[in-house]
Amino acid sequence: MAYLNENYLKLKAGYLFPEIGRRVKAFCEQNPAAAKRLIRCGIGDVTEPLPPAVITAMHKAVDEMARLETFRGYGPEQGYEFLRHAIAQNDYRDRGLEIADDEIFVSDGSKCDCGNILDILGPRNKIAVMDPVYPVYVDTNVMAGHTGPADDAGVYSGLVYLPCTAANAFVPGIPEERVDVIYFCYPNNPTGAVATRAQLADWVNYALRNKAIILYDAAYEAYIAEPGIPHSIYEIPGGRECAIEFRSFSKNGGFTGTRCAFTVVPKSLAASTADGKSSSLHPLWLRRSTTKFNGVSYVVQRAAEALYSPEGKAQISGLITHYMANAKTLREGARAAGLTVFGGVNAPYLWAQTPKGVTSWQAFDHILNEANVVITPGSGFGRNGEGFFRISAFNSRANAGEVARRLRALKW
Amino acid sequence: MAYLNENYLKLKAGYLFPEIGRRVKAFCEQNPAAAKRLIRCGIGDVTEPLPPAVITAMHKAVDEMARLETFRGYGPEQGYEFLRHAIAQNDYRDRGLEIADDEIFVSDGSKCDCGNILDILGPRNKIAVMDPVYPVYVDTNVMAGHTGPADDAGVYSGLVYLPCTAANAFVPGIPEERVDVIYFCYPNNPTGAVATRAQLADWVNYALRNKAIILYDAAYEAYIAEPGIPHSIYEIPGGRECAIEFRSFSKNGGFTGTRCAFTVVPKSLAASTADGKSSSLHPLWLRRSTTKFNGVSYVVQRAAEALYSPEGKAQISGLITHYMANAKTLREGARAAGLTVFGGVNAPYLWAQTPKGVTSWQAFDHILNEANVVITPGSGFGRNGEGFFRISAFNSRANAGEVARRLRALKW
Repeated sequence: MAYLNENYLKLKAGYLFPEIGRRVKAFCEQNPAAAKRLIRCGIGDVTEPLPPAVITAMHKAVDEMARLETFRGYGPEQGYEFLRHAIAQNDYRDRGLEIADDEIFVSDGSKCDCGNILDILGPRNKIAVMDPVYPVYVDTNVMAGHTGPADDAGVYSGLVYLPCTAANAFVPGIPEERVDVIYFCYPNNPTGAVATRAQLADWVNYALRNKAIILYDAAYEAYIAEPGIPHSIYEIPGGRECAIEFRSFSKNGGFTGTRCAFTVVPKSLAASTADGKSSSLHPLWLRRSTTKFNGVSYVVQRAAEALYSPEGKAQISGLITHYMANAKTLREGARAAGLTVFGGVNAPYLWAQTPKGVTSWQAFDHILNEANVVITPGSGFGRNGEGFFRISAFNSRANAGEVARRLRALKW
Repeated sequence: MAYLNENYLKLKAGYLFPEIGRRVKAFCEQNPAAAKRLIRCGIGDVTEPLPPAVITAMHKAVDEMARLETFRGYGPEQGYEFLRHAIAQNDYRDRGLEIADDEIFVSDGSKCDCGNILDILGPRNKIAVMDPVYPVYVDTNVMAGHTGPADDAGVYSGLVYLPCTAANAFVPGIPEERVDVIYFCYPNNPTGAVATRAQLADWVNYALRNKAIILYDAAYEAYIAEPGIPHSIYEIPGGRECAIEFRSFSKNGGFTGTRCAFTVVPKSLAASTADGKSSSLHPLWLRRSTTKFNGVSYVVQRAAEALYSPEGKAQISGLITHYMANAKTLREGARAAGLTVFGGVNAPYLWAQTPKGVTSWQAFDHILNEANVVITPGSGFGRNGEGFFRISAFNSRANAGEVARRLRALKW
């Protein structure tokens, strides 16, 4: 008799975005006129086309695949050297951070990597997540059996939730309870918050003292505008000894439908066996990559490489400028509407407080029904997301302006 | 203190192909002249360029990604409807097999899927693999903690190995020991064997009686030439109730560097909880896909779709004809050289017996040194692979002819 993984049966309801999709679909079917003016600021998906440098590189790579002499079959599972080098050089060494080419693992997405990384970690770790939290961190730990069941509020026993509130500017401090693995996401999805150098240094020092590991999701790194804010966990002394960093081309190069990302696993990072022997994690992740993955499409790796060309960098910069101008418009609009708004300065997300007495899903339904705008209810990201909603700045300029106007006109 | 997954420490040596790569590299460095005439028949990687229909589709899709009106961001994690439909219609319904579009899960590779499928299965299953075996099936089970340690021969305790020998024509019968999850690969990698309808029916009936699950890897389905050989496990009555099927575009469309595959999870397939409650696996795999994966690149999905166009089908047929003519040449050459050879009729792999007293790795070194040809040592696939080597037919016509000549000239 074949047995299933019963941890999956602990998972609560659907993933957040399918539930949003369901409500939006029902609304559109019942209100065909309103559906026509619907603007989506829900899911954090880019809207602008791929940069021209990427398009050129992809066409060229496709042509290579058409000719016997230049055709590429299986590539290295960890990514082609041309891309690993471009990443390590541009994102790290040119910024004074010591990361070797072979510490870069190219993948088809940070979402996958954030889940898959648990494969190389043991079942005994005490896991800490921010609250509100990107649901993937929690759900993948549930699937891996690192939690008990959830309560009615969707809080899983066994996980340590680090409250992110207006009081701590959405950057949690070190909890009283010992934790072994800590997920961070800065710039944060969903709150748009960033951590200062001093705040990250506290955590790195905690991790070094306790031999804990920080899983650092920096998918939105390109949106950091303010000087002095760390772009990488490796800017903090000791980071190489305690952190794995996840980066993506989804939000800088617009690769959400093209699929390319990377994970940095420093060779100086170790974890422990149950009997206390320390062992490097790099060979474990390499083994996982070569065994359970077959590399990213050659054409897509050439596309990602093009983002590091002078043209590519300029075009990324243009995209960031575009989305962050949207964020400014939306921020001003939401504030003019009397809402308290966080984020939107170093991240493409605004984190807006609902008016008093209004829950996140009530706000979602109200904004959908009255303004015909889709936002993301904060409670979908965790208990401390209740009373907030996320507005995404990924949109056209015209739509961002229109959403700002509709928010100002909205009666609560 | 962060803990690692100690199951990884049970893994023996490196994955087979890196070891081959190491030996070939060393040989080439020591023998630069011989290196120039090296022909690789080792790793099963296609050599012919992508079909023209695919190239056209990819260019078109890249152009769509360049324009605001046609740009695609996040797609459905399980694959675009256009591709799921093309697969279910062409590969199944047109052949009289009842598979719904939403039972198809598009992925970036069968290697990944074969490993990832373990996520939804529990730790109590007794796992059976063929021996010789595609190493990924074994290694992913080791990583998941489904085995004990390996002995010196690389045999892991806790796994059930099903011997595939010349005596059973490399198609194992049902073992005495009860098994819950059985990996099959037909046409087989590495032996090139296929199972008859009656042989598969025996296994399906076993699975139905014992509520076991068959994981059916049909990556080489397109190479089946003989009539009457099943192309899909779902051709066997009851298959929908006991089997998951893995398919790939790597070996028919030449997608080894382009990356697209799919897995079929019928909604009628169930597994059990520890207390005996039966539960459908489809929602579990859907949940895994949406949580730990973000879909295949849009451009690549359009590429795969093009394989189902009339031009695409004709071009696949041309590729198969090309590689199988190589297989015939190699088979005749190896036989003329006095070797006993299996496979190569319904699969692009030949499974050759080494001369008496010669081990697989000795044969590998001998053929590398004397014929300057890279093959794959059978023992790399398991205990019952000892005394065999695999010759891949993925090559140019000229190379296949030259390898056949060199094998005939080889002294043992």
